[in-house]
Amino acid sequence: MLYLVHTQVHIPAGLDAALVERLKTDETALSRKLQEEGKCRHLWRATGQFANYSVFDVSSHDELHTLLMSLPLRPFMTCVQITPLSQHPSAIAQN
Amino acid sequence: MLYLVHTQVHIPAGLDAALVERLKTDETALSRKLQEEGKCRHLWRATGQFANYSVFDVSSHDELHTLLMSLPLRPFMTCVQITPLSQHPSAIAQN
Amino acid sequence: MLYLVHTQVHIPAGLDAALVERLKTDETALSRKLQEEGKCRHLWRATGQFANYSVFDVSSHDELHTLLMSLPLRPFMTCVQITPLSQHPSAIAQN
Amino acid sequence: MLYLVHTQVHIPAGLDAALVERLKTDETALSRKLQEEGKCRHLWRATGQFANYSVFDVSSHDELHTLLMSLPLRPFMTCVQITPLSQHPSAIAQN
Amino acid sequence: MLYLVHTQVHIPAGLDAALVERLKTDETALSRKLQEEGKCRHLWRATGQFANYSVFDVSSHDELHTLLMSLPLRPFMTCVQITPLSQHPSAIAQN
Amino acid sequence: MLYLVHTQVHIPAGLDAALVERLKTDETALSRKLQEEGKCRHLWRATGQFANYSVFDVSSHDELHTLLMSLPLRPFMTCVQITPLSQHPSAIAQN
Amino acid sequence: MLYLVHTQVHIPAGLDAALVERLKTDETALSRKLQEEGKCRHLWRATGQFANYSVFDVSSHDELHTLLMSLPLRPFMTCVQITPLSQHPSAIAQN
Amino acid sequence: MLYLVHTQVHIPAGLDAALVERLKTDETALSRKLQEEGKCRHLWRATGQFANYSVFDVSSHDELHTLLMSLPLRPFMTCVQITPLSQHPSAIAQN
Amino acid sequence: MLYLVHTQVHIPAGLDAALVERLKTDETALSRKLQEEGKCRHLWRATGQFANYSVFDVSSHDELHTLLMSLPLRPFMTCVQITPLSQHPSAIAQN
Amino acid sequence: MLYLVHTQVHIPAGLDAALVERLKTDETALSRKLQEEGKCRHLWRATGQFANYSVFDVSSHDELHTLLMSLPLRPFMTCVQITPLSQHPSAIAQN
Repeated sequence: MLYLVHTQVHIPAGLDAALVERLKTDETALSRKLQEEGKCRHLWRATGQFANYSVFDVSSHDELHTLLMSLPLRPFMTCVQITPLSQHPSAIAQN
Repeated sequence: MLYLVHTQVHIPAGLDAALVERLKTDETALSRKLQEEGKCRHLWRATGQFANYSVFDVSSHDELHTLLMSLPLRPFMTCVQITPLSQHPSAIAQN
Repeated sequence: MLYLVHTQVHIPAGLDAALVERLKTDETALSRKLQEEGKCRHLWRATGQFANYSVFDVSSHDELHTLLMSLPLRPFMTCVQITPLSQHPSAIAQN
Repeated sequence: MLYLVHTQVHIPAGLDAALVERLKTDETALSRKLQEEGKCRHLWRATGQFANYSVFDVSSHDELHTLLMSLPLRPFMTCVQITPLSQHPSAIAQN
Repeated sequence: MLYLVHTQVHIPAGLDAALVERLKTDETALSRKLQEEGKCRHLWRATGQFANYSVFDVSSHDELHTLLMSLPLRPFMTCVQITPLSQHPSAIAQN
Repeated sequence: MLYLVHTQVHIPAGLDAALVERLKTDETALSRKLQEEGKCRHLWRATGQFANYSVFDVSSHDELHTLLMSLPLRPFMTCVQITPLSQHPSAIAQN
Repeated sequence: MLYLVHTQVHIPAGLDAALVERLKTDETALSRKLQEEGKCRHLWRATGQFANYSVFDVSSHDELHTLLMSLPLRPFMTCVQITPLSQHPSAIAQN
Repeated sequence: MLYLVHTQVHIPAGLDAALVERLKTDETALSRKLQEEGKCRHLWRATGQFANYSVFDVSSHDELHTLLMSLPLRPFMTCVQITPLSQHPSAIAQN
Repeated sequence: MLYLVHTQVHIPAGLDAALVERLKTDETALSRKLQEEGKCRHLWRATGQFANYSVFDVSSHDELHTLLMSLPLRPFMTCVQITPLSQHPSAIAQN
Repeated sequence: MLYLVHTQVHIPAGLDAALVERLKTDETALSRKLQEEGKCRHLWRATGQFANYSVFDVSSHDELHTLLMSLPLRPFMTCVQITPLSQHPSAIAQN
């Protein structure tokens, strides 16, 4: 089941640089793992922004919730928008 | 080059039913052609809405403009939002 | 899986009165059926408004989409907002 | 009498960790008590968000006000939206 | 129990003049009756607007809902905002 | 002459507790004085909010301005909305 | 007492041309009379818009309300925003 | 050439009191000079707000820009809205 | 003096096709004339939209107002946003 | 390929003055280089604002993204809006 997820990140100016680096490294590692598992089917950067669009493929709202809450940068996301996606009648591919 | 395109459609109540049917048929045919050509890489229906999210892969803004303006239902789209998408540094797939 | 669904209805002034009556009767019948089946777990009227809040319990986005699109008053809903709901850690009841 | 209550919580980064822990523990305890008493009839987490939807069943606005102001996390709620809910004519259950 | 109610009215240009006149007469009659009964404690016109602010004193959401839905001009109200009001600790008067 | 005044208050977390206490005491004292003088005709708390709705009865914009600016909590009001109120033709009471 | 008044006008396409002409002539005549009387102290057109900014100088909200409601184009104003203006401490001129 | 300029000021709580005083004194002095020169034709306080409406009469956008950027309180203005004003056909006065 | 002008056009479905054609022809002719005269320095189409961004170079607000009001499609523009542009200190080109 | 880019900058009050100066010098240097290379075709200051409008001419979203992220003041931009621009059929100049 697919969800379009739009996130915006704002890392406060004063945050410890080493901590920021570690958070980003952990975020990348988890992000790649989720892509390899097929949980995160698409991941794009919004051009010019500290923001992403991604499409998650999970079996329930609770799985998505747990997954998003486990993101290392979650505490610094100022916006998380979730849009359930359905099969489009004209789509060639199956969701 | 990828663009996230969000469209909302509102077909006025009084529109001729045969015309609506023909517009929808033409829209589906063009939509499938664009998917087969790879111009439209993804096509989803926003759950519960008369609205779509799609990802277009075209070579220029002008190509996207021509393509969107050629959609049979374009005159009935009350919202067309276009977001340029960039390669995400953590993405496994290449745009 | 639960979804909070907020709908607003606007029936245009000129619509045929008999048609409106039939649409409302059909809407009520379908609504009651969905409640009896447990697909619609809660149904409230927003005080003073031509608007509802309901909680749907369905197995997928596609099921919700099909269900909402089958509502007799769907063409007259000017707003359909869908919010996925997750289990709250402090909740006594299970979703 | 039912109220749909939507709350968003933002705990500032610098807050003392022990204090945060105690606030959360107290919030959970009070939340469970309110559910057991039937004051809080439903409690859901908005998927992916630091936000809740709940339905309160109290006898007056003042009771709701007192109750919400007593929540340990109230000072950290950046949004509290209250929507009075009425009996829906098609609802099987009585409010 | 008090509710601040803000309403905006838009009567479409083409509506039959006699009907409009009768609706307004009926609205005034009902409004005065509600004031005399104490259900409508205050009634003001927003300066320069086709809009009112009023304070209703009723015993439940359902009573308010029934009352607002019975207003002759309700079908022509483009906005009905309802805000529950509580006793203010510094207020001399009791709600 | 009547004005509907809607205020929201946000007292920053770090503010000195004794100062906050004194500000609140002063605010209450001034508020009661204004009510007794009839300058503040109504004062309500928005249910569940750190926000008020009040109706001021003063002779000019300048008097209202001076009065609002003298409120001890004014520097901590994040929102002050002012709506001029006129006599409603259906109102029984005179403004 | 001064009020900044912002109005936007939308005259529907189908309105009778002679009626529109007469409404505009009447609006101009009333507008000039109000300026000559000093009730309307300033009148500007928002550049490129079917919209005005004006400053009214009247003795009460009710006078402003009566005056605005008497404007021949009032039924075609889609927006009327009213902002009370106070004496600025640095202003050389007296309101 | 006239511009309606709306400004909102927010002076952070922690700012040095002597600095604030000097900024305000300088702002007043410059404001009076601009009024005397006719660059600032009108200056009003929005009732109850830390906000102004003014009408500037300058010969170019660049002159307005330089002038606004030279205001001592400019760094503390959270909102600066600029609306070009044109001659109104019904206005008696010439811009 | 430069102004960024953003316009959105909505031509109602029922408008006479010949009239629409003539309006568009006239709009194009006037647009080209304004470009040749240097009054319209830039003209772009917002990708996928019935909307333009243009930069006008005129000597006053009144000239811009007259010019925009003379556009054949002006009555069908649902949005006209005007932003005064100043010389940027880092710009190589002079406005 | 053209993009209209709107940026707003907010430099926090407490930032080290020497750092701010260096950031601004670097921003200017990079901005001029981009203009000389033709990557930044236009650069304007929004009158009265800490905000710019610019038109970038780059070959891809990724090039724009890299370029915007390399701006020394990027971490202090509170708003970056990107609008793809297409050739306008009435434009004399080619994009």
